[in-house]
Amino acid sequence: MPKNRDAARANLESLYRIFTVPEAPDSTLGAVDQAITDDVAGFLQTHIVAIERSMEEIEASFSSFTIPEEPTYVSEYTEFVKDNLVAQSVHTAAPGFVGHMTSALPYFMLPLARLMTALNQNLVKVETSKAFTPMERQVLAMLHHLVYRLPDDFYPRWIHDSQHALGAFCSGGTIANVTALWVARNRLFAPEGDFRGITQVGLAGALKHRGADGIAVLVSERGHYSFGKAADLLGIGRDNLIKVQTDNSNRIDLKLLKDECRRLQDRNVIPLAIVGIAGTTETGNIDPLEALADFAREIGCHFHVDAAWGGPTLFSDRYRALLAGIERADSVTIDAHKQLYVPMGAGMVVFRDPTALSAIEHHANYILRHGSKDLGSHTLEGSRPGKSMLVHAGFSIIGRKGYELLIDMGIERAKHFADMIRNLPDFELTSEPELNILTYRYAPLKVQQAMENATPQKRAALNALLDQVCMLLQKIQREAGKTFVSRTRLRIARHGEELTVLRVVLANPLTTDEILEGVLREQCEIVQRPEIQALLHQLEELCDDPAAG
Amino acid sequence: MPKNRDAARANLESLYRIFTVPEAPDSTLGAVDQAITDDVAGFLQTHIVAIERSMEEIEASFSSFTIPEEPTYVSEYTEFVKDNLVAQSVHTAAPGFVGHMTSALPYFMLPLARLMTALNQNLVKVETSKAFTPMERQVLAMLHHLVYRLPDDFYPRWIHDSQHALGAFCSGGTIANVTALWVARNRLFAPEGDFRGITQVGLAGALKHRGADGIAVLVSERGHYSFGKAADLLGIGRDNLIKVQTDNSNRIDLKLLKDECRRLQDRNVIPLAIVGIAGTTETGNIDPLEALADFAREIGCHFHVDAAWGGPTLFSDRYRALLAGIERADSVTIDAHKQLYVPMGAGMVVFRDPTALSAIEHHANYILRHGSKDLGSHTLEGSRPGKSMLVHAGFSIIGRKGYELLIDMGIERAKHFADMIRNLPDFELTSEPELNILTYRYAPLKVQQAMENATPQKRAALNALLDQVCMLLQKIQREAGKTFVSRTRLRIARHGEELTVLRVVLANPLTTDEILEGVLREQCEIVQRPEIQALLHQLEELCDDPAAG
Repeated sequence: MPKNRDAARANLESLYRIFTVPEAPDSTLGAVDQAITDDVAGFLQTHIVAIERSMEEIEASFSSFTIPEEPTYVSEYTEFVKDNLVAQSVHTAAPGFVGHMTSALPYFMLPLARLMTALNQNLVKVETSKAFTPMERQVLAMLHHLVYRLPDDFYPRWIHDSQHALGAFCSGGTIANVTALWVARNRLFAPEGDFRGITQVGLAGALKHRGADGIAVLVSERGHYSFGKAADLLGIGRDNLIKVQTDNSNRIDLKLLKDECRRLQDRNVIPLAIVGIAGTTETGNIDPLEALADFAREIGCHFHVDAAWGGPTLFSDRYRALLAGIERADSVTIDAHKQLYVPMGAGMVVFRDPTALSAIEHHANYILRHGSKDLGSHTLEGSRPGKSMLVHAGFSIIGRKGYELLIDMGIERAKHFADMIRNLPDFELTSEPELNILTYRYAPLKVQQAMENATPQKRAALNALLDQVCMLLQKIQREAGKTFVSRTRLRIARHGEELTVLRVVLANPLTTDEILEGVLREQCEIVQRPEIQALLHQLEELCDDPAAG
Repeated sequence: MPKNRDAARANLESLYRIFTVPEAPDSTLGAVDQAITDDVAGFLQTHIVAIERSMEEIEASFSSFTIPEEPTYVSEYTEFVKDNLVAQSVHTAAPGFVGHMTSALPYFMLPLARLMTALNQNLVKVETSKAFTPMERQVLAMLHHLVYRLPDDFYPRWIHDSQHALGAFCSGGTIANVTALWVARNRLFAPEGDFRGITQVGLAGALKHRGADGIAVLVSERGHYSFGKAADLLGIGRDNLIKVQTDNSNRIDLKLLKDECRRLQDRNVIPLAIVGIAGTTETGNIDPLEALADFAREIGCHFHVDAAWGGPTLFSDRYRALLAGIERADSVTIDAHKQLYVPMGAGMVVFRDPTALSAIEHHANYILRHGSKDLGSHTLEGSRPGKSMLVHAGFSIIGRKGYELLIDMGIERAKHFADMIRNLPDFELTSEPELNILTYRYAPLKVQQAMENATPQKRAALNALLDQVCMLLQKIQREAGKTFVSRTRLRIARHGEELTVLRVVLANPLTTDEILEGVLREQCEIVQRPEIQALLHQLEELCDDPAAG
């Protein structure tokens, strides 16, 4: 039927149109493109707070479960996106958004990310990435050099070596940490003699070969949740992810670590890896890396440093020493979408030994052939975008000194913010900032004083009420949408128990002292609300109640 | 020293500038932004072939291993990028680039990807993604519905359920396949009675609990390399990734599959999962999914379908039936950066059972709290960008019918291309297209004829020479940069041995029949080159040599 054929032809033509580039800016697609670009600028400049809609209301806009039959005009769709997605998204770049590890982005990342998207390279193999492969290899070498500072003749030998890679570019820190432990596991059970290695025979056979009953990973209780996932995924089991208690400064307790290792020996469990943290997610503290390196060497196990957050402190002449010992790690994770200021979805892991990644090497007939420079033969992921280009751009445009400035500013701002909190009698600093992260809570002076001589039961009752205040305060502030801090639960050594605390991350260079004063001022206003006043009233009564101990 | 302080202040100001949005398009950053945008358009419109530089030359531009000390101007950096990265990248969107699974992108993806980058949402938790969380949940529900078509009252119950997720949005198909097998493994060894489950006790303890010596995954020899990685990562061991031979159509041989399963029982190894492929990477064939579903049910094991490539065939009324049985799979992988035409770095896995992902659920104090709608509690990855927005855009703007058109066009073009090859006596089709992928090789008619009555030794010698022709042909064509096909090695049933073949993937709607004729014409020209003529001369001599059998 000619009519149908005409309709089909029209469909086909409109399909071709969406796959070709608008030649003139005044074409519909060109105009929509410009409008979105303008909108992005508007969004980022004004930081307008989203009209608060309830989650249920938002969900209603995303409730159809069938893929639309008919096409929609791009212009119509972008209107939908503006109203229902952009206006209801979180302004992670706002200078008052100091609760999580997302910050403002350097503006140049946007046009470069667009370029990256348009080129649509696939880093799994050279055939679909060409210059992007040496570029990514350079980024990995630069990061390797930042961490390990090996002699100058090391890098030309390894940077573009077709059989090896100095690290793996990943979609984030979790994949980076998993990759590190995967390599550690496979090296522990490398082929030898008749044993063909864990890669071939699996974990059960590998344990049998070594006559062991298990393998374990040791990390402080502040360790990132990705280690739990890794222990599950790699077949180790969460029981064998040993979470060692921390000292008063949220750093791993070395004595307890050694005790745990002895207990593992008693159970015939091999310590696979010790993980040091350089910037804990919740408090920004750094484990004693030198001592951990010594101990890992002593017992002959893999030493991994999770520097997803704190790694870029190495840019700073003033603060680099905080990470002393990191250069002795077998592997180090650093996230690019955190303090390298790259958009979401970029992490890296580097290995001191340039042959380490051979432990997870794999090949395929149509790509990743032996001897090719394909980076895909040494990564957990397969097809991957050219995001390393944005790290390359950051390194080049911001430079070492620019990053140093950002790091120094953040740490100094955190120290200053800690002072502000200390000056407010009704607030309690629950962790001192070592880097640019700190925690605190609202605790009226009277309650703080009453706690000093209270019985454990009374302390627990007071803390339980303070936890409620903290949760409510954080929720109200988040929903008001002007500023944002996060909350977590932490075992605070001097309280001897786990408390709910507010958490602040200071990585956005646009966050000024005035904005931080505003965060605290808003919190002082929020506690005046009736729902919180009711809790504070209960707290006061409990303080005054002699029967409560 | 005031001088230093002035310098520091100037640095600080330029740092602030790069973190703020250019207010006017005529600012430096605004101008650079515009220039890059124009360049992208130019690049995509003209498809200029890269000036061929050797890999060594390109590597020279990326050989420094130290992060630059000083900042660079954005304009200067973009010049570097244009000359050394853009001009030396692979034109994956070119209609003559038919060798891999990357295609032209719908143009609207570019401004929307920019918007996504600017919003910089993090899907791990609602606090940093808000509306993006329900949006991603909707995308997963839509994909679930496309695959499983469960009753209409199923979806409102589960789509926004805070305890569950219908699937996981991933950085690609590898993570999706790993996630599927991870879930299968953890469900096989779920907690029961005193046994606390594999998550807690690890793989060795889990095997002991079941009194088994191992677990195995069965997939055809055409299975994607990600299953090898998964077998390694999950502790299964590559020995227990059983690669079952295929029939003449590159589909898993069911009889051999059943034999392998029996052999596993004899070895006291539990079949963990049977994997069906819906669109093999190398030949685009589809396993008999109904029969696999029957057999998986019979032996009570997980049935996973890797539809990373072929999944979107479900959009097509005409070809959907090729995937019959997929709706009986426990889990299905579909890549978004393949036939959903989303930029690189997006894959998905959906699970029939809406509670399946609980097997890998995890929590953390500061995020992913119980009862939150945070998607991060059910994904292998941690922090993730809002890439699901681009799938949402594709579903909405292209629509089911638009995708259907794309799928139908690709399959029909492949059939047509196969006809073209059949019409050229000196080419041999080595796999018939079932979807939009086919393989072939250059084999002069005389050689093809000589093979028919040749001894196995002579056939092998002839094939070895043809392999060399194939490799050289592909390399010369790739380096010339006008058109591109890939190559792989495949066991071709009728030859009884593994051969090097050319591989073509026809997913770019801008690839016309004329362009495909050009690909073949170029290959006919390339075989005239002296280096290939020398090989053809050897082939001819071997054909004529009666002593060779």
